[in-house]
Amino acid sequence: MNFRTDLALERKEYIDRHDLDGIVSHRKTVDGITVDTITVTNKEGEKILGKPIGKYITVETVPFTKNSDLFSPSLYVLRDELKSLLPEEKGCVLVAGLGNGEITPDALGPKCISMLFATRHIPEDFAREIGFSSIRPVAGIIPGVLGKTGMESSEIISGIVKKINPCAVIVIDALASRSTDRLGRTVQISDSGISPGSGVGNHRKTISEKSLGVPVIAIGVPTVVDGRTLAFDILKKAGVTEEQINNTDIKDTMMVTPKEIDELIERASRLIAMAINTALHPEINEEDILSVVS
Amino acid sequence: MNFRTDLALERKEYIDRHDLDGIVSHRKTVDGITVDTITVTNKEGEKILGKPIGKYITVETVPFTKNSDLFSPSLYVLRDELKSLLPEEKGCVLVAGLGNGEITPDALGPKCISMLFATRHIPEDFAREIGFSSIRPVAGIIPGVLGKTGMESSEIISGIVKKINPCAVIVIDALASRSTDRLGRTVQISDSGISPGSGVGNHRKTISEKSLGVPVIAIGVPTVVDGRTLAFDILKKAGVTEEQINNTDIKDTMMVTPKEIDELIERASRLIAMAINTALHPEINEEDILSVVS
Amino acid sequence: MNFRTDLALERKEYIDRHDLDGIVSHRKTVDGITVDTITVTNKEGEKILGKPIGKYITVETVPFTKNSDLFSPSLYVLRDELKSLLPEEKGCVLVAGLGNGEITPDALGPKCISMLFATRHIPEDFAREIGFSSIRPVAGIIPGVLGKTGMESSEIISGIVKKINPCAVIVIDALASRSTDRLGRTVQISDSGISPGSGVGNHRKTISEKSLGVPVIAIGVPTVVDGRTLAFDILKKAGVTEEQINNTDIKDTMMVTPKEIDELIERASRLIAMAINTALHPEINEEDILSVVS
Amino acid sequence: MNFRTDLALERKEYIDRHDLDGIVSHRKTVDGITVDTITVTNKEGEKILGKPIGKYITVETVPFTKNSDLFSPSLYVLRDELKSLLPEEKGCVLVAGLGNGEITPDALGPKCISMLFATRHIPEDFAREIGFSSIRPVAGIIPGVLGKTGMESSEIISGIVKKINPCAVIVIDALASRSTDRLGRTVQISDSGISPGSGVGNHRKTISEKSLGVPVIAIGVPTVVDGRTLAFDILKKAGVTEEQINNTDIKDTMMVTPKEIDELIERASRLIAMAINTALHPEINEEDILSVVS
Repeated sequence: MNFRTDLALERKEYIDRHDLDGIVSHRKTVDGITVDTITVTNKEGEKILGKPIGKYITVETVPFTKNSDLFSPSLYVLRDELKSLLPEEKGCVLVAGLGNGEITPDALGPKCISMLFATRHIPEDFAREIGFSSIRPVAGIIPGVLGKTGMESSEIISGIVKKINPCAVIVIDALASRSTDRLGRTVQISDSGISPGSGVGNHRKTISEKSLGVPVIAIGVPTVVDGRTLAFDILKKAGVTEEQINNTDIKDTMMVTPKEIDELIERASRLIAMAINTALHPEINEEDILSVVS
Repeated sequence: MNFRTDLALERKEYIDRHDLDGIVSHRKTVDGITVDTITVTNKEGEKILGKPIGKYITVETVPFTKNSDLFSPSLYVLRDELKSLLPEEKGCVLVAGLGNGEITPDALGPKCISMLFATRHIPEDFAREIGFSSIRPVAGIIPGVLGKTGMESSEIISGIVKKINPCAVIVIDALASRSTDRLGRTVQISDSGISPGSGVGNHRKTISEKSLGVPVIAIGVPTVVDGRTLAFDILKKAGVTEEQINNTDIKDTMMVTPKEIDELIERASRLIAMAINTALHPEINEEDILSVVS
Repeated sequence: MNFRTDLALERKEYIDRHDLDGIVSHRKTVDGITVDTITVTNKEGEKILGKPIGKYITVETVPFTKNSDLFSPSLYVLRDELKSLLPEEKGCVLVAGLGNGEITPDALGPKCISMLFATRHIPEDFAREIGFSSIRPVAGIIPGVLGKTGMESSEIISGIVKKINPCAVIVIDALASRSTDRLGRTVQISDSGISPGSGVGNHRKTISEKSLGVPVIAIGVPTVVDGRTLAFDILKKAGVTEEQINNTDIKDTMMVTPKEIDELIERASRLIAMAINTALHPEINEEDILSVVS
Repeated sequence: MNFRTDLALERKEYIDRHDLDGIVSHRKTVDGITVDTITVTNKEGEKILGKPIGKYITVETVPFTKNSDLFSPSLYVLRDELKSLLPEEKGCVLVAGLGNGEITPDALGPKCISMLFATRHIPEDFAREIGFSSIRPVAGIIPGVLGKTGMESSEIISGIVKKINPCAVIVIDALASRSTDRLGRTVQISDSGISPGSGVGNHRKTISEKSLGVPVIAIGVPTVVDGRTLAFDILKKAGVTEEQINNTDIKDTMMVTPKEIDELIERASRLIAMAINTALHPEINEEDILSVVS
């Protein structure tokens, strides 16, 4: 493939063969929102799609830069899809916000954690006192980036998982998509973990159920297109042949983002954070959550 | 022109005619650093270059992402070029840092102001007491962006200029260049003011000696390439004809930045801020300035 | 007075005489919230209260650190009191957020501006297109602090007022109160402007209708108690005589804040910003405003 | 004791008995800087001082708010004292910056990590290539605060220690001192770890060699005085008796800081970070370190 994408949906679109052994697709529409589910069921599917076995749910929302209600259909669809991947057990969940808070398109993860309703430290007595019969323990971490911490996010998360024994881990990260059209309107939720390489930098090694020992749910939003990917796309649309393209010297050090990336990140972070908060705390009123975390 | 650039030097490279009436160029090398000066001397030059009458000094430094000394030759070359455009009079100078601090490649201006040695409020007595026979009054402002303030930067600056009557205004802004190669290694200093349109957003109307009534020195660093410009460049290099290009539908809502944009901005801001600080306060030791502002 | 407070209500409590010529007080309760209005009507009142002629409205809310609804009675009471001081004319309003964003208890003003719904730059056509028959022009500015800008906030605001000609100015600032009990539960709204000296630093000269030529509404929240004030208070409560107190050497370089000052500022900023937004844009649904600004 | 302090030196000053079994003190002056070393040698000393067995080095610098050279004697004295507590082995060191980055006086730890020269991820080959025969692996983490992460800093650090096996841990934290005079001019370095309770919030459980299994060096700077401690101090100085004081109702929810706390934290963070950087990387020129991290 002459392009880079973190979206299973985009990889599938590219495959031009009919027998997709090991890849099952399903599309539905909920409250006007399209939800695509791609399931990779075996090694053959892994090879074809280039993504590990697991479920990849893609939710297309209205563009994040458009003004939108705080409690929109997108929120509830995301919440429900996220719930469908969470283990039934009501144990502690660790939420990790990957990425570099200093680079706007990569700040999605850190910003989500700043709006997370962390509850693991709240004693049961106190929870009951303030009116909750039970409150699910939730913990949050911003691991930071390799260049500043000297550690892979996967190392930090793995260390914490061993210490606090959550029943599941949710990781949030900015993604790269192939097309600028998807930036700011797509959310991918997956149970296959996160593989190396990312939207912006290389800030992770694999974070998955296999590496951590507990289910890992990855939530990602495409915020950049790889510079080289954009270039190839443009050339292809202009009718330049693959061979010509391969002869072109295009460096791989650039990223492409919308000019209004600050608003996109702000809105996407709030949406993702609230989807996680409402999925993990169904017993708490969402307005109460919002007033606590924002 | 099928591309966008805020650099006079890049516009000139593109002109393919020999008689450049009204445009005078000069190149020199100082301590291994290339300094190009393009002077637009009349209306004809304005038309050819597409830039208003004035001097455009381009300094090529080592890439900002490379580790570099705090007090490098780049700093002194920039300081001296900046000095050459400052009025001789030792009056108050207002420094304005344009741009959106929330978008990494656009945060250059705001970050510079955070490292500015503002002195306008320091009483002469106190200055003498701490060992300075005289201290030049310097003021700094971060005007913010239109979408958040409801005001053009030019309006805010113009209002302040009327109020505090500086002898000159320095405006700092992130620029767009045509080529990704220039990002993070070029500084443009100009005495012609800043015209509408910019590296990242459209956060200004003209800010110039004509509009403000005092000399305006603009300092800019290219931090982005316009998405459309990159696209055209790639197509051209691949041999696609102008006509084919013009038929391509490429949207103008994207920007392209290096993946290490956070470090680029950090280093560029420090370099520009220290060049301004040392140019405006020649009487103060540069280590003292650095310890005050950083 | 052996203490410092920016609240008219606290100054009045301290006056121990019965004939308060030139000072009119009024208390009401709206939706369980106490609203005190003190009006200084003449020079005699100014002398007694130590505050310039004008209206001082004090709203006691629930403590900002308690979880509270986004759209609580406090919001509507504040909105209505603010409206009562705004000129009837529907012209442009400039909102200025004073204070130092780097010092948590002083960051109230800057944080409010970050949640302001600025609209002055939105063309009428566009407003109509997105469904508003008219939209009031609102502009916002964070002037910064003297030590970093070299300019008084009053100079910056005055310059901008001359340039954009608003029909009124709203200034937001952190205040000092006499008692730690008021921190995080009191809002003062006044039409007398802001006089020198403030909650945290000395970041202003007078900003008032007299100095600016347009009505000035000041909104303040006490976020600190002056260190010396706290000391005197403690001594007094312990029965130490005024004379003994005066002999005590207590420096005036300290400030006292609640340990949860970050949450207090976060909530107070949101409350004040939304009170301003809803007062200035009655035609827009408050949920829509919230989704635009937060 | 009717006061709260995290400084061993202040606790010792308070003890009014002559036989200090288990407590050894030593004072020296280096380049005009006073260095006090208090060593608690046994359980009896622990009881008397109220601090665990270990060494407590207190360095009195010039006030952090005074302008000072980047490379001052304070830096070298701190570096050398820190070195004296580091294990001889040249293994990996984990540096943790405790505290709440949103509360200015508590932001010391997070700010230090932002200036840490993290190197654990740099391959040996690359280190040699850029001119270093060897480079010590250093990792850094900002664990965040309990209320936002749901986890104690000690849990996060302990989890990471198990994962990356450092030979020592350095923890940085803002402290409470008894006296406002010490704020912004004292650094405490200790090898006894950090015990619960802190300068600003309650953001930790014990972090020590015993709990982590590797040597722990704690570096702290007093940035606040507890509100209650200040009150007691004032009362005592005014001649109020202990009994009277105990009858006074003084709440424990306030903290006292200098008004210029932003500058204090900025300078203290740079000093501590550079002391750590130069102690851990003696082979690298300090100007090079500074240009990399700031």
